[in-house]
Amino acid sequence: MTRQDIVNQITKKQTFLCVGLDTDIKKVPAHLLNDEDPIFAFNKAIIDATAQYCIAYKPNLAFYESMGVKGWISFEKTIKYLKQNYPEQFIIADAKRGDIGNTSAMYARSFFEELDIDSVTVAPYMGEDSVSPFLTYEGKWVILLALTSNKGSHDFQLTADAKGERLFEKVLRTSQTWATADQLMYVVGATQGQLFEDIRRIAPDHFLLVPGIGAQGGSLEEVCRYGMNSQCGLIVNSSRAIIYASNGTDFAERAAEAARKVADEMKVMLEKYCK
Amino acid sequence: MTRQDIVNQITKKQTFLCVGLDTDIKKVPAHLLNDEDPIFAFNKAIIDATAQYCIAYKPNLAFYESMGVKGWISFEKTIKYLKQNYPEQFIIADAKRGDIGNTSAMYARSFFEELDIDSVTVAPYMGEDSVSPFLTYEGKWVILLALTSNKGSHDFQLTADAKGERLFEKVLRTSQTWATADQLMYVVGATQGQLFEDIRRIAPDHFLLVPGIGAQGGSLEEVCRYGMNSQCGLIVNSSRAIIYASNGTDFAERAAEAARKVADEMKVMLEKYCK
Repeated sequence: MTRQDIVNQITKKQTFLCVGLDTDIKKVPAHLLNDEDPIFAFNKAIIDATAQYCIAYKPNLAFYESMGVKGWISFEKTIKYLKQNYPEQFIIADAKRGDIGNTSAMYARSFFEELDIDSVTVAPYMGEDSVSPFLTYEGKWVILLALTSNKGSHDFQLTADAKGERLFEKVLRTSQTWATADQLMYVVGATQGQLFEDIRRIAPDHFLLVPGIGAQGGSLEEVCRYGMNSQCGLIVNSSRAIIYASNGTDFAERAAEAARKVADEMKVMLEKYCK
Repeated sequence: MTRQDIVNQITKKQTFLCVGLDTDIKKVPAHLLNDEDPIFAFNKAIIDATAQYCIAYKPNLAFYESMGVKGWISFEKTIKYLKQNYPEQFIIADAKRGDIGNTSAMYARSFFEELDIDSVTVAPYMGEDSVSPFLTYEGKWVILLALTSNKGSHDFQLTADAKGERLFEKVLRTSQTWATADQLMYVVGATQGQLFEDIRRIAPDHFLLVPGIGAQGGSLEEVCRYGMNSQCGLIVNSSRAIIYASNGTDFAERAAEAARKVADEMKVMLEKYCK
């Protein structure tokens, strides 16, 4: 999927919402538990209910892996369902992988060849050769962790070097020598509102995946004021606040309502800041 | 598994070898390809042939994930086979995970509860709350990336802060406030021989997992001279040089030879430097 494809979808739908499919068997509504594959049944219903309000889906691999072989089957079925029924949706495998070259190449093969997923989140700690195998696929994307939204982001990401450059800034700057904004996005946590300006100074054109809206507590307005560029440049994720809006038989309907509400706010943000 | 269990195994077998199960279907000997599960058949033969020469096995998750559901089944069967037949072996899931708290908790559940694996490699970029969910399991280990052996390790890990502390040193120092040497090990790349002294200054007691012997080109003698402590303190991995010693029908026999050769060198190293 090209950057223009993503921009076109945002323009057409007037939303830049990503729905996080962090599907936990412990939170799936009881009436689905008799289904042959409750996780897939849940995801399918959530996708059908929310697709018109979002431009991307982000299954978090941990939630599927924690169920072993069964979980992996649910994950693959979810991807196939999205590809067949909503081919315009940008699919993000939230895997936070990153390993030495030949191992990263295996992960890339898994996500990009076997499953034909559009993008994967990658951790930068091991440097260029841990990231570059993901960059050899045309139309596929790396979403590199830069500044995350969790408390532990302060432990290392904000450490400044002798010249005053913080680690997340070095990641943003260095990684731009590996790929362009047509293949590379960054994970930037939404609870760090004031830092979006610093990030846009280094990476004005890149799409930023913002994971911290909703349960993680970021403000959409602040993210957009400081983070939006002329092509929108933001994909804002919400997981729990949407997919677990209800745990009754009305879960899909309520998820649609929650997604629509966020999409309505996003439309206002696009009118206000996307220029 | 406790630290004493690991030390006891090293003392008894006079080896600190870890065999990396980076099993690639493209490299499995042709005569195994008709097997119902060639990856598991290969692993089983390699394990049976090498168990007396090593104290740990390290399946690399990427190699299993790249084969989707099938690969995950082979991975689970390999773990079960090890637990049932070689319960003294220390099992390392080389996964390099690391995510926000609730997601790391899912990974921990996957590796420690579902599969009862002894340890998992974790990436430090996201800080304490991405690591701590792995530390809530008694007898289970986190092996944190500190200084890796790949070229890209220079991109960020060696960056010094204003006080001259390099990122890998900050990871070593900071993470010791999260857990003791009874739960925490570090990944330290073997191609960085002279850096082992710096590491031992900060982490004298911790076990270090050294991935860079063999195909990745580190020297065992140099690692031991600078890295060994009175309890050995080293687990040195070799993958390709052992498991792909031959791709004929004699692959297991040749793997045993290769492992025995490394173990023989390790015995000498223990006599020389373990004091």
